[in-house]
Amino acid sequence: MSRIPRIDSRRFWQSVEASGEIGPGRPGGLARVALSDADRAMRDLFVQWCESAGCAVTVDRVGNIFARRAGTDAGAPPVVIGSHLDTQVNGGKYDGIVGVLAGLEVLRTLDDLGQKTRRPIEVVSWTNEEGARFAPPMIASGAFAGVFDAEWVLARTDDAGSVLGAELARIGYAGNAPVGGRQLDAYFELHIEQGPILDAGGVDVGIVTGGYATRGFIFEVKGETAHTGPWPMDKRKNALVGAAMLAVAVNDLGWRYHSTEGKATAARLVAWPNKPGILSDWAQLTCDIRHADPQLADRMVAELFAAVDDCAQRSHCEIRMVDRWVFGNERFDPECIGLLRTAARDLGVPVLDIVSQAGHDAYYVSKVAPTAMIFTPCVGGVTHNNNEKAELARTEAGVNVLLNAALARANR
Amino acid sequence: MSRIPRIDSRRFWQSVEASGEIGPGRPGGLARVALSDADRAMRDLFVQWCESAGCAVTVDRVGNIFARRAGTDAGAPPVVIGSHLDTQVNGGKYDGIVGVLAGLEVLRTLDDLGQKTRRPIEVVSWTNEEGARFAPPMIASGAFAGVFDAEWVLARTDDAGSVLGAELARIGYAGNAPVGGRQLDAYFELHIEQGPILDAGGVDVGIVTGGYATRGFIFEVKGETAHTGPWPMDKRKNALVGAAMLAVAVNDLGWRYHSTEGKATAARLVAWPNKPGILSDWAQLTCDIRHADPQLADRMVAELFAAVDDCAQRSHCEIRMVDRWVFGNERFDPECIGLLRTAARDLGVPVLDIVSQAGHDAYYVSKVAPTAMIFTPCVGGVTHNNNEKAELARTEAGVNVLLNAALARANR
Repeated sequence: MSRIPRIDSRRFWQSVEASGEIGPGRPGGLARVALSDADRAMRDLFVQWCESAGCAVTVDRVGNIFARRAGTDAGAPPVVIGSHLDTQVNGGKYDGIVGVLAGLEVLRTLDDLGQKTRRPIEVVSWTNEEGARFAPPMIASGAFAGVFDAEWVLARTDDAGSVLGAELARIGYAGNAPVGGRQLDAYFELHIEQGPILDAGGVDVGIVTGGYATRGFIFEVKGETAHTGPWPMDKRKNALVGAAMLAVAVNDLGWRYHSTEGKATAARLVAWPNKPGILSDWAQLTCDIRHADPQLADRMVAELFAAVDDCAQRSHCEIRMVDRWVFGNERFDPECIGLLRTAARDLGVPVLDIVSQAGHDAYYVSKVAPTAMIFTPCVGGVTHNNNEKAELARTEAGVNVLLNAALARANR
Repeated sequence: MSRIPRIDSRRFWQSVEASGEIGPGRPGGLARVALSDADRAMRDLFVQWCESAGCAVTVDRVGNIFARRAGTDAGAPPVVIGSHLDTQVNGGKYDGIVGVLAGLEVLRTLDDLGQKTRRPIEVVSWTNEEGARFAPPMIASGAFAGVFDAEWVLARTDDAGSVLGAELARIGYAGNAPVGGRQLDAYFELHIEQGPILDAGGVDVGIVTGGYATRGFIFEVKGETAHTGPWPMDKRKNALVGAAMLAVAVNDLGWRYHSTEGKATAARLVAWPNKPGILSDWAQLTCDIRHADPQLADRMVAELFAAVDDCAQRSHCEIRMVDRWVFGNERFDPECIGLLRTAARDLGVPVLDIVSQAGHDAYYVSKVAPTAMIFTPCVGGVTHNNNEKAELARTEAGVNVLLNAALARANR
């Protein structure tokens, strides 16, 4: 057997560091939210890098960017590697980004080695993975997988009323390619763990076997405006209070499942008029529930809905669910996972099996293609925070596993 | 004694109805928030009406408009009548407005009668009474009374970051007159009750003897951003949850004092980033507490601060007070109240003594001038709502009391 190919670690990390200059946020972090000017600048640089590597770049209608390295069998479906380049408003320099740039590094390494593959290999950057600007998260990989309708995705609005499709056009990434509807041979995604397990365990590569069952909800609360002075407590229908009660109930629910590592999060609360002197007659609460055990996740959902009824009764408001989403039930492809294990073994890299607690584009893509994911460590598990930190020394093993697994798959 | 003067009811109500066309909100209501284009249009019309009535109009640096009808004793301090022309975002057509236009009708009636007064009479419209755009409420009458510094008032910002002073200039009401610092002989304010007592009791005129002790607070909550998935419940510092806990605690506090007609309101909650997928590290809650008994109000405040500590502990966040305001401790002037009682008796109008539960410009003005207030009925006590309703038939008695009391005072 020939010498096992390895990436150019220095070049890979230089790209990661260069990307970390675009869209600065709080000290050490990024605020490169989807379809912002910073996102455009990052996309432009990524496209330039891909074209310099000889790739053909296409952009689909929801702004997903695909950079294709041709295979010797032009008709064969591609092996795709990727993640996302957008961040949270208080995000780090690694979440998503290392996965996209790891894919780019795979292509660059294959070029260095003069290595042709039977199947094409594509690197993808998915639009708006974070959901930090347009809800729900992973919206564009979801559209690719047929979970969301592309027209619906293009019509999403941010808090300022800007429309996703118009913002894509504004930054020059409203592409022509159809969204999904084509065969992928396989999809690989490398991502920082966003949890403490690898860091604490001193293991550099996590094999993701699946995701926490995740249930997202938006609840709408309807009340009545009135004066905060004379209006008696027993006549009040303060929608802000209804939503606040539900936010507290969601947090309590998370604590009840804390011993089995369940989570429940009140993530977003908006109200109207939300002003001094007047009771609000409208509010929305966005929350999610996560558990490794889908049956316990379902039980948490049942408790959430019981809490909704209780909060409605106590606040004298109407509360109804206006949106919901589900991810993390997926199990990844045994054959693709096997390629990761084989590559790790050949490289002599220890691995740990992990169930992901965060959402990833890979979940949706797994609905339409054999999929596997690699986790790499981040310090203390800190993420969605400007103190998020990953190190080359503990990331490169994962990228080498990715390289060899993708290479094997592409030559299958 | 000569025949008791009375207003021209039809003219008065035509003015009220004309003002109700400016700044439409929800059906039947207004959204004429301070320093909006609609506020400018209303101010322009009011100034035009005052000038047509022969008044000299001056605007002070915080945008308060004074329309002066000269007295025979040019050096005598004026009797001032007024209220506000701004509304909540879901406001009605009467809250504040009837008081300003009642003042204008007093001047018009005196002109009709060819009645000169010894003291000048001024009609005033105070800027941003509602606090619906710039906090705190009653900001400009507060500045007039020396409670707030004028420069501080001019620097207040709204949610979009617009600055009060710049917005005043934009709509053409950044006046030159100094804010306050001059003697008023007396101040009278007529206002809808914003409560159900007059309506239910079939009495048209309320004599306001004072206000509910009111304590407003803004609390800031500080936490830490993190991922809503992997981050364990026991490490979380979700500022949104801290603020929601406090909002619920405030509401519970109100209920504990419901039997003695106390109120506590969570009016406004904002958080950052306030997005799906990330825990918020900052939130603010604006709330207020009201009780007719200042001692009980103080006890409520003590309970509020105990709740703040409890919520901080339970949410693992820091919570601190960043702003507070106090009003409603004032007692109105016995002599001015006596003039209202005399006028009502002379007119044969039954009155009811009422303690106001809402905030009014009169509270602040009472710190620098002998002050009294008249309440007129609104249907069902509904206010800060597009269904707010007042009727001429039940308002005119109050305006006639105002006319005769102001006339007596101005000839004193």
